[in-house]
Amino acid sequence: MTGAPAWNTFERRMREVCDLEAVGQLLVWDEQTYCSKRGHDTRAFQQAALASLVHERVVDGAYGEIVDELAESPNGLSREHRAMVRVVKHDRDRAVRLSPELVRALAAQGSRTNAAWEQAREERDFNVYRPELEKMIALKIEQADALKEGDERYDAMLDAFEPGMTTAELEPLLDGLRSELVPFARRVLEAPAPDDAVMRQHYPSDAQWDFSLEVLRELCFDFDAGRQDLSSHPFTGGPGPTDVRLTTRVNERFLPMCVLSTIHEAGHGLYEQGQNPAYLRTSIGRAPSLGLHESQSRFYEHVLGGSEAFWEHMLPIARRYFPTQLDGVDLTEFVRALNRVEASAIRVNADEVTYNLHILLRFELELALIRGELAVADLPEAWREKMTSIVGYTPKDDVEGVMQDIHWSWGELGYFPTYTLGNLYSAALAEAMSADLDIDQAARSGDFRSILDWLREKVHSRGYVVQGEDLMREVTGRPLGHEAFMRYLTERYTRLYGL
Amino acid sequence: MTGAPAWNTFERRMREVCDLEAVGQLLVWDEQTYCSKRGHDTRAFQQAALASLVHERVVDGAYGEIVDELAESPNGLSREHRAMVRVVKHDRDRAVRLSPELVRALAAQGSRTNAAWEQAREERDFNVYRPELEKMIALKIEQADALKEGDERYDAMLDAFEPGMTTAELEPLLDGLRSELVPFARRVLEAPAPDDAVMRQHYPSDAQWDFSLEVLRELCFDFDAGRQDLSSHPFTGGPGPTDVRLTTRVNERFLPMCVLSTIHEAGHGLYEQGQNPAYLRTSIGRAPSLGLHESQSRFYEHVLGGSEAFWEHMLPIARRYFPTQLDGVDLTEFVRALNRVEASAIRVNADEVTYNLHILLRFELELALIRGELAVADLPEAWREKMTSIVGYTPKDDVEGVMQDIHWSWGELGYFPTYTLGNLYSAALAEAMSADLDIDQAARSGDFRSILDWLREKVHSRGYVVQGEDLMREVTGRPLGHEAFMRYLTERYTRLYGL
Repeated sequence: MTGAPAWNTFERRMREVCDLEAVGQLLVWDEQTYCSKRGHDTRAFQQAALASLVHERVVDGAYGEIVDELAESPNGLSREHRAMVRVVKHDRDRAVRLSPELVRALAAQGSRTNAAWEQAREERDFNVYRPELEKMIALKIEQADALKEGDERYDAMLDAFEPGMTTAELEPLLDGLRSELVPFARRVLEAPAPDDAVMRQHYPSDAQWDFSLEVLRELCFDFDAGRQDLSSHPFTGGPGPTDVRLTTRVNERFLPMCVLSTIHEAGHGLYEQGQNPAYLRTSIGRAPSLGLHESQSRFYEHVLGGSEAFWEHMLPIARRYFPTQLDGVDLTEFVRALNRVEASAIRVNADEVTYNLHILLRFELELALIRGELAVADLPEAWREKMTSIVGYTPKDDVEGVMQDIHWSWGELGYFPTYTLGNLYSAALAEAMSADLDIDQAARSGDFRSILDWLREKVHSRGYVVQGEDLMREVTGRPLGHEAFMRYLTERYTRLYGL
Repeated sequence: MTGAPAWNTFERRMREVCDLEAVGQLLVWDEQTYCSKRGHDTRAFQQAALASLVHERVVDGAYGEIVDELAESPNGLSREHRAMVRVVKHDRDRAVRLSPELVRALAAQGSRTNAAWEQAREERDFNVYRPELEKMIALKIEQADALKEGDERYDAMLDAFEPGMTTAELEPLLDGLRSELVPFARRVLEAPAPDDAVMRQHYPSDAQWDFSLEVLRELCFDFDAGRQDLSSHPFTGGPGPTDVRLTTRVNERFLPMCVLSTIHEAGHGLYEQGQNPAYLRTSIGRAPSLGLHESQSRFYEHVLGGSEAFWEHMLPIARRYFPTQLDGVDLTEFVRALNRVEASAIRVNADEVTYNLHILLRFELELALIRGELAVADLPEAWREKMTSIVGYTPKDDVEGVMQDIHWSWGELGYFPTYTLGNLYSAALAEAMSADLDIDQAARSGDFRSILDWLREKVHSRGYVVQGEDLMREVTGRPLGHEAFMRYLTERYTRLYGL
């Protein structure tokens, strides 16, 4: 089969897989929002049945021949169509290289390791977790060996989340960040921390919810193509760009929890809603990488949502929802409280200065694990050492240490660095944006449309036509580094902390 | 393949199909509740992709051989396992008999007829609808000819919703009902109608919602295995018995809308939640027919929810939510207002006395259409005549006449009678239940658990092990007739209307 018939067959299958994956995303959303307590067990069967069907469609040999043929002879295909083929081939090649036995073993071990993790946390005993995590790491090494194209196992891990990125690029990038961020964070942490009592008053949950919806409207989130619900861990998902599902959570005793979660997820959601309609239901109607996706959430949450200009516009709005709590509160003090920096145990609660320190240690540890340079048995001690030397905090036990994250239980290695890449990308994007528009001025006047339009044109509408790093190089005019992020942090915290 | 290997292969595929169908049900629920305005177009693709996969799994030839083999040599299979095979074979045989072309043509014509129906309603012109409905009826005749086993096309329509029921049984059953119901309804309609002003006060929507949840709790709906949401057309769906999704709707100017919708759907939902856990994710973990399902909703809504005993318990509860509206309202007057009978144009708004008259005329018309005894062009006039002679109301145009329902646009013939079967079953069940417990006494004391336990044992937990009619014969000790329903109506409305 060649030419148009091959393309037509390819397109039909690609769209079918996209549609079914979208269904899978809806199942995940529903499970986190409205699934009944007793519905989770059967939901797992439903998800497994769907995933196995999708896998079967993807690895089908006849489809593979067409994909390979179109990839080898792309004459006559447009740039976008070539990209669709490239993305499908990338994902398909990964799927084909894994034996069904290994896929099943990884899924089953994921459940077991997760169960052991929960029990170990309850008993505060790493040894309950250790044997199952050892099995998981062994399977991940087997998986990496099946997938990797060169010598570096970690490349195969990264490739699942940040296609195109290699360990050889990432390691020096993060080393560079570490060499500047660790001393900078020390300077900030040694300065007197701002008082955040204003954030810790009682903020009724209904008013927080209503305020979060108003913030979404301000940021131009399109409620005809999405919605917000509650879940215990905020995320962005749902069945595609025309129906984007954000979630947030509310803490009545800590205002930033809800509003910052909403702003963060809005960044993800606006990215999804900004996908080119022509790419809908294709393999390129999505972000090229998790890091790039995270760049949007972090741009909105930190660069924008942590700025004084943003709150110059938003604080008067917040006062309508919380008149007594925010009466007479000074803008600068509010923003200082919002950006309070603290060395702490738990990554997900960390501020933007120390957050990436938590990531750096995870990256170093998971790299050593997958390279076979670190044994699981030595992990708790290695964690404690790195926490102390990198974050400047010594965890009191393994629950607030090595057992705080769920990712490794599910075999998610290569995922953590995308959070930091998101920060690096977001600062680089902000510098590029500043050449075209005054971000603070736009925020101050509530003109979030201009900011969104810029991101739409430069990033969102571009989909997955090119890889994340290439897209960023095109937009920022330079390769990814840690410099823009450090300039951003230094500028903001020098001012906020009067360093 | 024989014996255990055949069974294992069968069971795996059956469960997979059940799981995927459950996913399809979740998609439908989501579309009616939380799907974004712009998400509906892509949702249609997602549903089509899933449906086509399920169809492919069901009609797969190797699976068919195993199903036929187990059906022919069921030695060693338990009664339940035989039933699983029987149900799968029934559904599979229907699926296999239809060519993929006809399935696609029916789906495509459904969309077109539906679009024409919407336009024709807007322009109030049946001729806009007629050509597309003609094509749909022609396709339904083709479908019936492909499916039917004897001479009667309508049997194949019925078989989709009420397996085991034949036209030869149904026609005399409904004729018998008609002969008694038409004159009885006339007597009721000639009596002075109760004043229902009490229902038409302003009832705030939040309070109605909260009251409806309390009613669900009273009726023993399990919120660990289900939930209630809002939708414009109330329904019960969702991904299975452990996660049952009810919906209701609220009219602030008419109290019965929300509470009766909730009670109706609770009947459906309690049936689902009462499925035998051993049948979960199998072909028999569901009601044997739509009529039987409807018997539960109608039992709860009418037999129970329309009774004075029910409101003796529930009115004091309602007063807590609507203290000013219901202050001093007399129980008997409230129940009379709730059961107000009126000859009217629209089926979905009809009371329980006239409701089945609306069904009888639809049954007679769709039977004539599929038999080729009535042309679509003559439908509006036939509708008007039957409305006048059966319901006693002459529609002022085709919008409140033949174009009021969406069912025929989608090719749903054979569906309407299941509503009436639901009423007949519900009254027969109530008589059987009365032999074991005093329903009024249970309702009066809020002991809805006893009522539910009886239904659980006799109906809910039985799943689809036997067909609906057989199950009913077992429970009531006699074949289905219209007598119990007429006794029930006569008793209730003679008293309420002082006939």
